[in-house]
Amino acid sequence: MPRLTVSMFEGRSAEDKRELAKRLTEVICEVCKCPADAVTIQFEDTKRSNHAKAGVLFSDQ
Amino acid sequence: MPRLTVSMFEGRSAEDKRELAKRLTEVICEVCKCPADAVTIQFEDTKRSNHAKAGVLFSDQ
Amino acid sequence: MPRLTVSMFEGRSAEDKRELAKRLTEVICEVCKCPADAVTIQFEDTKRSNHAKAGVLFSDQ
Amino acid sequence: MPRLTVSMFEGRSAEDKRELAKRLTEVICEVCKCPADAVTIQFEDTKRSNHAKAGVLFSDQ
Amino acid sequence: MPRLTVSMFEGRSAEDKRELAKRLTEVICEVCKCPADAVTIQFEDTKRSNHAKAGVLFSDQ
Amino acid sequence: MPRLTVSMFEGRSAEDKRELAKRLTEVICEVCKCPADAVTIQFEDTKRSNHAKAGVLFSDQ
Repeated sequence: MPRLTVSMFEGRSAEDKRELAKRLTEVICEVCKCPADAVTIQFEDTKRSNHAKAGVLFSDQ
Repeated sequence: MPRLTVSMFEGRSAEDKRELAKRLTEVICEVCKCPADAVTIQFEDTKRSNHAKAGVLFSDQ
Repeated sequence: MPRLTVSMFEGRSAEDKRELAKRLTEVICEVCKCPADAVTIQFEDTKRSNHAKAGVLFSDQ
Repeated sequence: MPRLTVSMFEGRSAEDKRELAKRLTEVICEVCKCPADAVTIQFEDTKRSNHAKAGVLFSDQ
Repeated sequence: MPRLTVSMFEGRSAEDKRELAKRLTEVICEVCKCPADAVTIQFEDTKRSNHAKAGVLFSDQ
Repeated sequence: MPRLTVSMFEGRSAEDKRELAKRLTEVICEVCKCPADAVTIQFEDTKRSNHAKAGVLFSDQ
């Protein structure tokens, strides 16, 4: 702990996730004053056809 | 907010999700008296081999 | 299955949740053509001080 | 209820999940003194490229 | 990883959670052949008024 | 989307969450090249008595 989950629409590159992992962890460590190896991050890739806002799927918008 | 997550066994059609998104949002708006664009829904497709009840995988039942 | 999670800001009455449980389940059963007792719903009460949009806590907006 | 979610890196065999489902349910039933069919388990298969510790993706370690 | 989440109705004693943590971890380690300190468990205490089955809250059943 | 969930042991100040919301959102926007109001964050406060590692509750360590 702390533990982050980051949900994004699928298609993000490994490079984006690599940079997010590094920089989100830095922010957590600075604000929470915790060591980096206490921070875990999980990325979730989701589909536009599996999300809706205002009753409409993103894949239909 | 409100935010719904709907987990179902994989195989549901886009049409089913489209209708669920529309009608679940309508129910939320009526009961919670909130605008439709405050409501987000996420669908999760799961496998029968990844669920168990009473200690037995659904794929084995 | 299906399984719904409904996250809302805290303060909703038991009556609201009772009506949501009934009506959301009806929609699921009609669209998914499944029996009512296959449907489970979990409500999550969250605080405005634990949610942010655009980098600002809802409790600060 | 009780309800378990088990997140593991992808690649576990169906046999492993079958044994986990059986044995985890037994433990829950013994400690919680509940019937087996009250216990549900969901497995989540995740990728090493979607997890990070100390700011580094597991796929880079 | 592996990572378990255990959702139960509120009211379980610390002793029950202590025993569950120990025994669920043992099962995971034996089946997954992983070291104990790779296993994390999170307990979630939920209310009967926040769960429904077949459209009816558990607190109304 | 993107959507972040940040789980931390309870006791963090509102000021910490306020700063985390601001800075985590900045990182997401820069790396993902998305507008700030597309980013939502949910904080979860958890108890040391509800988390275990290596089979031992954090409240017992």
